[in-house]
Amino acid sequence: MKFCSLCGEPVEQLIPAGDNRRRYVCSSCEHIHYQNPKVIVGTLPLYEGKVLLCKRAIEPRKGYWTLPAGFMENQETSLQGALRESLEEAGATVINPAFYRLFDLPHISQVYVFYRGELQDGHYEPGAESSEVALFSEEQIPWDELAFPVVTELLREYFVDRQSGVYPVRSSSIERLIPKA
Amino acid sequence: MKFCSLCGEPVEQLIPAGDNRRRYVCSSCEHIHYQNPKVIVGTLPLYEGKVLLCKRAIEPRKGYWTLPAGFMENQETSLQGALRESLEEAGATVINPAFYRLFDLPHISQVYVFYRGELQDGHYEPGAESSEVALFSEEQIPWDELAFPVVTELLREYFVDRQSGVYPVRSSSIERLIPKA
Repeated sequence: MKFCSLCGEPVEQLIPAGDNRRRYVCSSCEHIHYQNPKVIVGTLPLYEGKVLLCKRAIEPRKGYWTLPAGFMENQETSLQGALRESLEEAGATVINPAFYRLFDLPHISQVYVFYRGELQDGHYEPGAESSEVALFSEEQIPWDELAFPVVTELLREYFVDRQSGVYPVRSSSIERLIPKA
Repeated sequence: MKFCSLCGEPVEQLIPAGDNRRRYVCSSCEHIHYQNPKVIVGTLPLYEGKVLLCKRAIEPRKGYWTLPAGFMENQETSLQGALRESLEEAGATVINPAFYRLFDLPHISQVYVFYRGELQDGHYEPGAESSEVALFSEEQIPWDELAFPVVTELLREYFVDRQSGVYPVRSSSIERLIPKA
């Protein structure tokens, strides 16, 4: 950030009075431009014991498999966003959704929110950001070709939870970086 | 938003290619300035069967009671943020935290994340944004003087959950507006 989005004058970095963090502050109108984490919302779509994954058609991690997820938009709920992303990226209508997971990724200032759900009618098709979409049984999961640590972690937890049929809602942070391709 | 924070030229509102929402786009460098929901993190601090509430010293809802909570910062986890806010607003060290609640507030593009926890040593003191901090038993909760619908909802749920000793992690949206004072 170099300029004030309200008045167009240069911003400077300083700790405002009563604060304890450096912020971008306009040198002219003195507006404080706070920067905050972004929320990524997605689903774990399930059908006949299989999990729906999308092969990424875009960077980062193009060619790797992920769960349908994307940035939450203003004026929507996390669930609405998760269902929207599932439809956009995987042509998937997810029904009977249940809150399942919150991941913090502080190194990139992101919070992931995932819902579990059923893939309606087993129907899917790749959206603009996916080159391929497919259902995988536990044995078929391409563990070495998953796009992001949150996907690996969520799938691992799901297959453990499935054995007991109990799906606790968890929150934890992942500070691992994406492995180099 | 009127100006590009990267180059200082005017922004315009349009739907970028491949998108389906109006965004602020720089008329000069063409950077797309996405706007996304903000996360508010807080705790439900408990001590000897009582709940810690803070009387707001600032607007909005100055003079009303709330749980310690505030905007999540970049480079922190939701839990770190919740504990930080508890210390800042209520002088409260919250221990043994457990993930408890996600609220979506789509009308104001906010997501609340709450952790339950114990107030260490029963110690608290008002921070800069609180005029008063106090412990309340269920019978003492000032239901008509609570600052925000999320606080009312979370407290109601907590007192119900406490009867069974089971604290499911819930996600739902609240679209109620703050009642007029």
